Amino acid sequence: MPIAVFGHQSPDTDAVSSALVCAGLLERRGQQAKPYRLGPLNPETEFVFGWAKAPVPELLTRLEPDQPAFLVDHNEAAQSLPGLATQQVVGIVDHHRIGQLSTPAPILLRTEPVGCSATLLLALQREWEVALQGQEARLMLAAILSDTLGFRSPTTTEADRRAARQLAQLGEVEDLTALEEALFAAKSDVSGIPADALLKMDFKVYRFGGRPYGLAVLETTHPASLLARKGELLEAMREEKAKSQLAGIFLGVVDILSGTNQTLVPSPEEAQLLERLFGAPVHDHLADLGDRISRKQQIVPVFERHLS
Amino acid sequence: MPIAVFGHQSPDTDAVSSALVCAGLLERRGQQAKPYRLGPLNPETEFVFGWAKAPVPELLTRLEPDQPAFLVDHNEAAQSLPGLATQQVVGIVDHHRIGQLSTPAPILLRTEPVGCSATLLLALQREWEVALQGQEARLMLAAILSDTLGFRSPTTTEADRRAARQLAQLGEVEDLTALEEALFAAKSDVSGIPADALLKMDFKVYRFGGRPYGLAVLETTHPASLLARKGELLEAMREEKAKSQLAGIFLGVVDILSGTNQTLVPSPEEAQLLERLFGAPVHDHLADLGDRISRKQQIVPVFERHLS
Repeated sequence: MPIAVFGHQSPDTDAVSSALVCAGLLERRGQQAKPYRLGPLNPETEFVFGWAKAPVPELLTRLEPDQPAFLVDHNEAAQSLPGLATQQVVGIVDHHRIGQLSTPAPILLRTEPVGCSATLLLALQREWEVALQGQEARLMLAAILSDTLGFRSPTTTEADRRAARQLAQLGEVEDLTALEEALFAAKSDVSGIPADALLKMDFKVYRFGGRPYGLAVLETTHPASLLARKGELLEAMREEKAKSQLAGIFLGVVDILSGTNQTLVPSPEEAQLLERLFGAPVHDHLADLGDRISRKQQIVPVFERHLS
Repeated sequence: MPIAVFGHQSPDTDAVSSALVCAGLLERRGQQAKPYRLGPLNPETEFVFGWAKAPVPELLTRLEPDQPAFLVDHNEAAQSLPGLATQQVVGIVDHHRIGQLSTPAPILLRTEPVGCSATLLLALQREWEVALQGQEARLMLAAILSDTLGFRSPTTTEADRRAARQLAQLGEVEDLTALEEALFAAKSDVSGIPADALLKMDFKVYRFGGRPYGLAVLETTHPASLLARKGELLEAMREEKAKSQLAGIFLGVVDILSGTNQTLVPSPEEAQLLERLFGAPVHDHLADLGDRISRKQQIVPVFERHLS
């Protein structure tokens, strides 16, 4: 049975691209592997796969009980395939914090505080001394630009910049600025998407102190057009919070170009928490989180510290 | 404050050598780092550091509350420095299963199912493009020979064999067989060591189903001389079990040359567990576990599967 390789729920460009690339690297290393995704492509990822002329991985809804799984761009059970058993996990390549991870035996596990999983896959490709296709290099480059917001995110490292340069060469991409603009335009073109789908586009559940919290992010070059839909977004947040029995739910609207974060909160409960954790005053369901634009580096650790 | 780099409690050759080497690699990468050990050197490790003419890392008993820590050759809290906080851990290089790991933010984390942590450090040294000293190569080579029992352990991979060849060259070690024999002789020369110290020489605590179990191993070329001390070893096991409030305690006596494992159990409780988990009949406090000589690959996963 081939190893199923997949990224997190509500997949983004890194999750889907890294699944495809990682499966390819494993195959070239002599293992059977097949890439998957756990949800629909978001508009940016759809653009990226069209641009790179790459085949979109199939949707995965369940695995055989003894099928091996390789996780990319995530490691927490709450963000992975529902029902996945720890003994199925044979590998993880990720750039997020480790959340309640246990494995019965040693596995191939790599995490690093870099901007993108694709940066780590490039290092793995070198170590394994296997080929990388131009199509794969283009997907990885797009994933890095997407995850680091064009190197603007505080998660960006020198390793990401160097990887992007090497991938641009391998993928024969000459105009990085044009690619970046096309990515951000696709990322921001969400006017036709209903509020509940917008909420779930980059939505992750974390367990802090044993309780589940939903942290959504929407990165855009046009925050005003998203904030104009505040009413329906808040309604979608309340519904998701009730349906998934979350202890709290937050939606950060990140302005890519100014590097700022305005976060929507549905109730006084979440408002008080943000005031306590970040000293951020909340007005009319909107908290100004300033330049905290990285969920993994600037938001999650603060929740973890205060709630665990 | 420098990053404190250290291996597990009851340190072995890999734990102490990898701490020294990893601290050196971090320093050459531009970070301040200092190697430590969490306990006294065992006879084999003492021999190795003398042979390699390497400085023995200092004993570590406590860290400053905000001092960063880098773990080598382990990752489980129960095997690490008592009181270590997860937010202090900035890196892990290991070849064991992951046990209940959570970190508030992304860290440098590498595990792989290979025979020795030193094998992973060699890959890291290449990726980081920093120098490796001859002394370090000798320590790493000895660690690989020790952990893989001269490539006899089922944990041995092609990566370990290749790393050993490269390290022998770098360390200018010509006669691997002579080194292996000297290692095993030092490993087996334990006649002067009291039973309670023998028990703790390679002793690890694992949590299975939330309860702590102590799994000790003694690798030797002379199992008979250890088994002749069965009475005092069982007494030391009963004392440790009571003192540390363990749910069970086991001492595997591994015959390096024949590749077999005879495991001591102090009470009917442990005997029944081994019969249930491995179908191994127990006679007179001794269970024949056959060729199960790797704790991490052949023992711990079975405990985990049945008790969690």
